[in-house]
Formats: sequence, structure tokens, C-alpha cells
Amino acid sequence: MNITAFEYNDNIIVVDCGIAFPEDEMLGIDLVIPDVTYLKDNVDKVKGIVLTHGHEDHIGALPYVLRDVNVPVYGTKLTLGLVENKLREHNLLKSVKRKCITPGQTITLGSFKVEFIRTNHSIADAVALAITTPAGVVIHSGDFKVDYTPIHGEPINLQRFAELGRKGVLLFMADSTNVERKGYTMSESTVGESLDDIFLDSEGKRIIVATFASNVDRVQQIVWAAQHFNRKVVVEGRSMVNVVKTAMELGYLKMPENTMIGVEEINRYKDGQLVIITTGSQGEAMAALSRMASSNHRKIEIKAGDRIIFSSKPIPGNEKTVSRVIDDLYRKGAEVICEDTHVSGHAMQEELKLLHTLVKPKYFIPVHGEYRHLKKHAELACKMGMKEDDVFILTSGDVLELDKSGGQITGRVPAEQILVDGLGVGDVGNIVLRDRQKLSQDGLLIVVVTLQKQTGQILCGPDIISRGFVYVRESEDLMLEARNVVKNALEQCHKKRITDWSKIKGVVRDALRDYLWAKTKRSPMILPIIMEV
Amino acid sequence: MNITAFEYNDNIIVVDCGIAFPEDEMLGIDLVIPDVTYLKDNVDKVKGIVLTHGHEDHIGALPYVLRDVNVPVYGTKLTLGLVENKLREHNLLKSVKRKCITPGQTITLGSFKVEFIRTNHSIADAVALAITTPAGVVIHSGDFKVDYTPIHGEPINLQRFAELGRKGVLLFMADSTNVERKGYTMSESTVGESLDDIFLDSEGKRIIVATFASNVDRVQQIVWAAQHFNRKVVVEGRSMVNVVKTAMELGYLKMPENTMIGVEEINRYKDGQLVIITTGSQGEAMAALSRMASSNHRKIEIKAGDRIIFSSKPIPGNEKTVSRVIDDLYRKGAEVICEDTHVSGHAMQEELKLLHTLVKPKYFIPVHGEYRHLKKHAELACKMGMKEDDVFILTSGDVLELDKSGGQITGRVPAEQILVDGLGVGDVGNIVLRDRQKLSQDGLLIVVVTLQKQTGQILCGPDIISRGFVYVRESEDLMLEARNVVKNALEQCHKKRITDWSKIKGVVRDALRDYLWAKTKRSPMILPIIMEV
Repeated sequence: MNITAFEYNDNIIVVDCGIAFPEDEMLGIDLVIPDVTYLKDNVDKVKGIVLTHGHEDHIGALPYVLRDVNVPVYGTKLTLGLVENKLREHNLLKSVKRKCITPGQTITLGSFKVEFIRTNHSIADAVALAITTPAGVVIHSGDFKVDYTPIHGEPINLQRFAELGRKGVLLFMADSTNVERKGYTMSESTVGESLDDIFLDSEGKRIIVATFASNVDRVQQIVWAAQHFNRKVVVEGRSMVNVVKTAMELGYLKMPENTMIGVEEINRYKDGQLVIITTGSQGEAMAALSRMASSNHRKIEIKAGDRIIFSSKPIPGNEKTVSRVIDDLYRKGAEVICEDTHVSGHAMQEELKLLHTLVKPKYFIPVHGEYRHLKKHAELACKMGMKEDDVFILTSGDVLELDKSGGQITGRVPAEQILVDGLGVGDVGNIVLRDRQKLSQDGLLIVVVTLQKQTGQILCGPDIISRGFVYVRESEDLMLEARNVVKNALEQCHKKRITDWSKIKGVVRDALRDYLWAKTKRSPMILPIIMEV
Repeated sequence: MNITAFEYNDNIIVVDCGIAFPEDEMLGIDLVIPDVTYLKDNVDKVKGIVLTHGHEDHIGALPYVLRDVNVPVYGTKLTLGLVENKLREHNLLKSVKRKCITPGQTITLGSFKVEFIRTNHSIADAVALAITTPAGVVIHSGDFKVDYTPIHGEPINLQRFAELGRKGVLLFMADSTNVERKGYTMSESTVGESLDDIFLDSEGKRIIVATFASNVDRVQQIVWAAQHFNRKVVVEGRSMVNVVKTAMELGYLKMPENTMIGVEEINRYKDGQLVIITTGSQGEAMAALSRMASSNHRKIEIKAGDRIIFSSKPIPGNEKTVSRVIDDLYRKGAEVICEDTHVSGHAMQEELKLLHTLVKPKYFIPVHGEYRHLKKHAELACKMGMKEDDVFILTSGDVLELDKSGGQITGRVPAEQILVDGLGVGDVGNIVLRDRQKLSQDGLLIVVVTLQKQTGQILCGPDIISRGFVYVRESEDLMLEARNVVKNALEQCHKKRITDWSKIKGVVRDALRDYLWAKTKRSPMILPIIMEV
């Protein structure tokens, strides 16, 4: 959920605008977007949103944020191509201004000059930003790695970083994701070599490769391997189909003629003539590969001998679902290959040191990563000679004021997580989540009773309906007895002349809760409903 | 959830009796136990349950299974000590016969002779079993590793495996957990060396070590390091306190005099004089370390400078919760150390090859592991010279019949997962889980209406109550409109003289579902309730 605002006098520019995926305890939530109250309140100052690359955690919240903060969006060609797919889905394509930028280009936004510097990452067309402000130059790395032999385009523009560094950089903000990992990330092109080895070894067998849809360079290498070994390429999974289409249209993915075929044509080819490129590398239940693995894919059936390559690594939290899909594939007699088929898109320690050395900033803010990554990146910067006071570890919402004489956290802006559920943005909060949590654990019991208004006598009920609590057919005695407990509670209320509904409900709820806990050691949600006629 | 039955004529013995932890989608479930219908149906044949070691996935289901299949339980001293803690909690201590076995000992159970062979594992007192049957000798490895320098007791009895192998083994069943990992597992004692290094480097700082409660040898090494560096030991977390107590009583854990102190005494000592050994190495929300990290521990507060050692590895599926606890610890200024502080308890490829070479069985069944591990262990056995037809990959419930001339899967016994929720064993099934799943995603709406019996007129309601759907205060319009939708649906029914309750409910449910989907793109559970007076 990356988003950063830079402000100088009456000028604000925003860098990136991403979503986060819901945490496990955010039951039923589709995605999480940032709270942009501060931008809404200052919408007249906002000159534009500048994007570093096209990953969801950097562009995903645009369709939501642009509704309230409709400002021009700047990004490189592929990034904007992916943004446009999103805006189209949300019917915003016409109302949002976009400007396509080439790496090396500089734009002026109010009192800011923003220069786009080519970097490398696990998606093509990633850039860092050099933001010239009246107070000095800020370099924001975006997500990056150093790849001397990238697939598409050129290596990261180290010369430009060096030049800016030599002239003097006020603030460096850099990707911390891989700060715990020693050494250098391998080049994307090393994956191609591994793929070739696997293809060479897979004669006569069908190959299925799962990877991130957005990793166009990876897809390119799979296509090259297919071409090399005379295989046809099938592209499967909604996001894979979309990204491949966009990347081909924009020239980021070169598909040799007569290589790609439709999924309905696979029966015309032998197994050894096919490569299927698919989504599902994270074991997502609804993704194409997972559906193949569980025999729920309409067109592709896994069979003995299939070779399935995971050209990916499980994102933390997905290890178990990935492992389950792999197990399902093995059960069908397929062979799964996960080794040497992926490289990271984020700089490791030596690359970070390289950038720090080139940029030599006055101040440093580690960004992109869990808190411990920020902390360790700060330590790395200090080991390289920075003073502790010149390094700032920020929390979402912190306002850092900075000039040549120093920096200080001077305040906070709202930075809640806004939950998106279906069409609802922000209408699911803690109370709703707590209820979902409770319902998910022990289910619920509903007690309904109709009373006569004057006398308070029971006219109908009490009836008890349960869901997610016990299997009712096998728990008839329990439910019968529970009904008696409620009846007694109601009679007690009647005797004691308790007429206040909320009190009656409380008595019923307590009696039933105690009874159920004693009998089952479970505490379902209990909802007493009183009707009066 | 390990459990295996061996049967010959009218004799059955059972090896291990474990639980599984619930999968993510088993909402609200506490634990999973095996279906022992076959044992219940043949209870007169069952001669006893033989245990290989004291981990939950090997002994945890005993209190449930012994209720129906009350047979003697055989195990080594520490294993039985842990079993007895369980039986005591379940009030079964008096009714279950236990017999303590020493490694090397042989017992006779019907037509079986069972010999206990010392192995090494991440819990002390683990054994393999050599089961002599009229058809030949079966060796069951249990969970094991080869540790030439174990902490407690002796290395795995390789000589005995060799001797049995030379005489001829019909069937080998062996641990497959680490079959994907190359090389040898490191000795448990290497962890002690790392701990010493960390302690040496932590002068003046408080040390907190999180590890698995059952890893008594690990706890022993932490105690030794504490002793070496003149630190007092505090033991925290319910299961850690219990296991340490049992292990000390039985002589598996040696605590030097004046070393252990109570948690309430920590304020009497300086940080540099303390080691806290705690549960929570898997990031479990309620475990002691997680509570410390989130400031919910009553007695221990994490402070800047604390050094926290994770002497563990996240079990697949726990990566994210562990990572979150680590982040919380860093936020409090603590430092977290996870490297070189853990070794696996399971044999890797070279150890497996060693055992296969010593045992040289006629038949082989890979056990303990996901399907892909079994598959790869089978491949390893074949690479070492076994014939594919002599290796059997079994699925839970499979019945394999075996004699000197060959083996064959001849049937299946019930092998469902029995879900335990509170006191309920098996009363939560797919319907209840499906309801919990649905409730957890979008919550529910309850529609209540009281009708007049004769006329079908609405006397009271319709009222709509929702939980876990939307935050009601901010969705008043939606709920008002939903009420109108229900009203209209009821009026339509009345006009069309639909009097069948289930039909009326269907009409209400459909109308409301369509309305809510159009407005929110969510589909909560809808429960129409009709009362009649």
C-alpha cells in the first residue's frame, strides 16, 4: 500500500498509489487502500501522481483515490498501460488525465521537477525518481534491483545516480525488501538459462509454467524457450491473458509468429509441442493452475508426466497454499520443479551498498519493507558512514519536515487502512470484522419469540435457529434443551415483571450462553429477537 | 495425525495416535483426530498402542481414541510422561494401562514382537520399532534423524538397524519429511555452540529464547549457556512450564541448583543476568512471546536492547504470524536473532540413504510427509536399487496386505478427519464449516416477520437484523430499502396466495439477495424467519 506525498509551500506531488492485500483476520475483505484524507483536504495543491512501476502495491488504489483526488497521472508506457486497464474496469478512463514518460525525461509539477531514472525490477519499465525541490534533490528508488543483463531494455542508469550523487542529494529513499539478504540478486536472464535446461530435459512432455502475470520479462523468456524447443505457447488465467495482451500491444513482449495458440487448440498438438504459461504461482484458490490441480479447470487437465515449473517464490503467507497445490499436482502424477527457476526483483545488500555509495545522500529514509527491514536498512546506512540522526524510520502517516539544516517528524496525517469489500469502500470496520470473526469461530444461535404486547405472554416460540454451530440433526437434544433454557429465562422475566426488551434479551442471552458453554465449551453469537403483537 | 495399524490374524497393534492441527478453512476447529472406526469395530483384536515419541502428531489423539479403544499404551519414559499429562487433563489416568519401555527392550503383543530401537529426534527418547511378525520383520523408523553427538543419551542405534538388515527385513517404513533436502541434518549440539556465541556477544542485555516446548534437549542447551554465562533462567508459557517440569522430574533436563527463578523475581536481577525461555516460536497469538511482543503479557515487557532468539523455524503456514511478532519486537527496540539457532529433527537425504543401506528391506513404504515427500522418498529408494513394485505409496485409509511373495492394496478403512471443537468430537462437519465460511466472508441478515395465521397478514415486522455485513449506522438507507424489498416480496406472496412457508422464505431470500448484490456486490447469508400467531 505504497503512497508518499511530497509537499513544498502550496505544491504536493504523490508518488505511487498502491493497495495492500487483506491480512488473514480481515475476513471477507477484497483489498485494502490507503486513507487519503489529507490529499482530499488539500486537493487544490496536488499537482499529480507519479508512478514508479506497475505492480498492484504501487498502482492498485488509483481507481479509488482518483475518484476524490482527480489529478494527472504520470508513468512509463507499460505502467500506464496497466493503469489504463484498471481505469477502464472502473469507468474512469475518460475522466483521468495520463501522461506517458520516457526514462530520462524530466517533468515540472509546481515547484517540483521530477526526473525519471531507469531501474530494473521484476516488472519492465520501472523507474526511480529524482525530485528536485527548492530544498534540494530527493531520490526515490522505487522497487529496484541492479541487473546488468536485463531482458527488456537497459540496465539501471547507475551513471545518472552517480552524477546526481556527485552534485549533492538531500534525501535518499530506497527499497528495503531484501536488506536481510547478503550478496547480489541474480540477473533475470539467469532464469532463461535454467528454463532452457529444463526444456531440454523435458522432451515429449507437456510443460506448464506458473509465474506472476506482471513479470513480462519472465514470460518473454518462457516464450523464447518455447521458440527454441519448437513448442506452441498457451496463455492461461485472466490476469496473465490481460498482461500478455497489454505487453504485446506496447512492445514489451515479443511473440514470434505462429507461436501462440488458443487453449482450445491444445488437442491438436502433442504434449512435447506445448508450453502453458499460467497464473497460480501463489496457490491462489481461483487461479488457473490451482484449478487444474484440483480438476476444476474446464479446458486443461493435469496428467501423469506433465512437468510443472513454478517460476516464482511464495509470498510470505502463501507457503501452505502453494505447497498444497504442489501436492495435488504430484498426486496426478505430474512432476513439479521449483529450483533455480526464479530470481528476486529487489536489491540485496551489495546492491543497496552500491546505490548508497553512488547517491551519498545527506539524509536517508528506508522504504518498502516490514519494520525490521527498515530498521536493518537504517543500520546498513549507518555502517556506511551516515549519522544516526540523519536517518529516519517513518511509520505510515508520519510527517517529516526536512531542509538543509535537518529533519524532524512534526506531525501525523490520517493513515488508516481503508477496507474494500465488494462495492463498499470503508463501510466495513472493526465492529463488522469482529462479528465476522466471532461468527467464523462458533457460528450463531438466533432466538425468536413473539410476545403479546399487553400481557407479555408468549404467543409464538421461542424458536431457536442455528448456523455454523453444531450439525443440527445430530444435536436435537441439545437444541431442545436450549429451547427449555430460553423458556425458563423468559418465564423468570415474566414473573419478575421485567418488561424492558433489552433486559429480557440480556437474561436470555446469559442463560443460553452459560448452558451452551457448559455443554459444548463453545460460545456462538447469540441473537435474541423479540416480536410484539 | 499419524496412526498405523498392523494386523495379523486376530491381532492388531497400533503405532502412534496423533492429532493434526486444523487447516485454515476449518474455521473454529481446535484440532483434528483420526477416524478409528476400524479399531472400534475390532476392539477385541487390538493388543495395544505403541508410541515412537511424544510429539502431538504422534500422541495427541490418545485421550480421544482411548475412550473407545481402551488398550494398554507402550512408550519410553519421556513419551509416557507427556501422555500422562494429557490423560490427567482428560480424567483418564486411572482407566488407561501404561507400560514404560527402555530402548533395546522387546515386548510381545499377540503374534507380534515389538522391539524398541533408540533413534534421535527433536524430542528426547524417540524410538524406531522393529516389529517381528510371522510374515517377517517390519521396521518403522518413527520420526528420526542421525545425531552422532546428541544432547541426552546416545546416538541412534545404527548397529541394531544393520544387524536386523543383515538378517532380513520384510518392510521398512521411514520418515520422509526432509527427503527434499540434500546432505545431513546438523547435530543438535551445534545449536549449543551458536547459543554460546550469542550469549558471549550479549553482555548486559536480557536474552529471551523462544523454542518448541517439547524440545527438551534445546532447553537443556539454553540452560547450559545460562549457567556458563551466570544467568538465571525463567521459564514462561504454559506448555513450556509443563514440559520442563515433566522433563526435570523424569531426569531428561538437568537444571543446576539456584539457576531457575520465578517470573516474579526478574526485577531482582539485572538484564545481563537473565535468560527467559518461552513458548511462542511459531507466532501463536496466545503464546507468551507473542503476548510480550504485543504488550499483552502481564509480567514481562519487551524493552530496547533485549535480544530475542528464535531457536526454531516457522512450520509451513506460520511464516507470516512469526514475521509479524518479529516486527513487533523490533518496534520495541529489541533485536531478533534467527540464524544458526535451530536444526531440524528429521533425517535428510544422506541419512535416509544410510538407513536404507543398513536395513535393505524387501518392501518399502515412505511415511510422514506430504504426498510429494512420499513420492520423492519412493524415488530415492528406487535410485538405491529397489524395484518400483516393491515400494508402496499409501493414502490414509489404504489397507496393504503383504507377505513374502508381494504386497497389494486390498481395501480401505474409514479415514476421515474427525474435527474437535470444544467438547464436541465430530459434531462439526462440512455443513457447519460451510456456514462458518459463508458467515465469515459477508456476515448475515436475519429477516423476521410475524404473520396472522388465518389471513397471512403481517402483524409485526418485517424486521431486519444484520451482523458482519455492513456497519449499520452508516448504512441506514440500505437497511431501510432492504426492508421495503422484503415488504414488497411478502405482499407479492400474499397477493399470489402463496402460503407455503418455505416458498415465502425463498421469495424473500431471492429478492433480498438480488437487491444486496446489486447495491454492494456482497452475498451475506440471508435467514428469513416467519412467526405465526
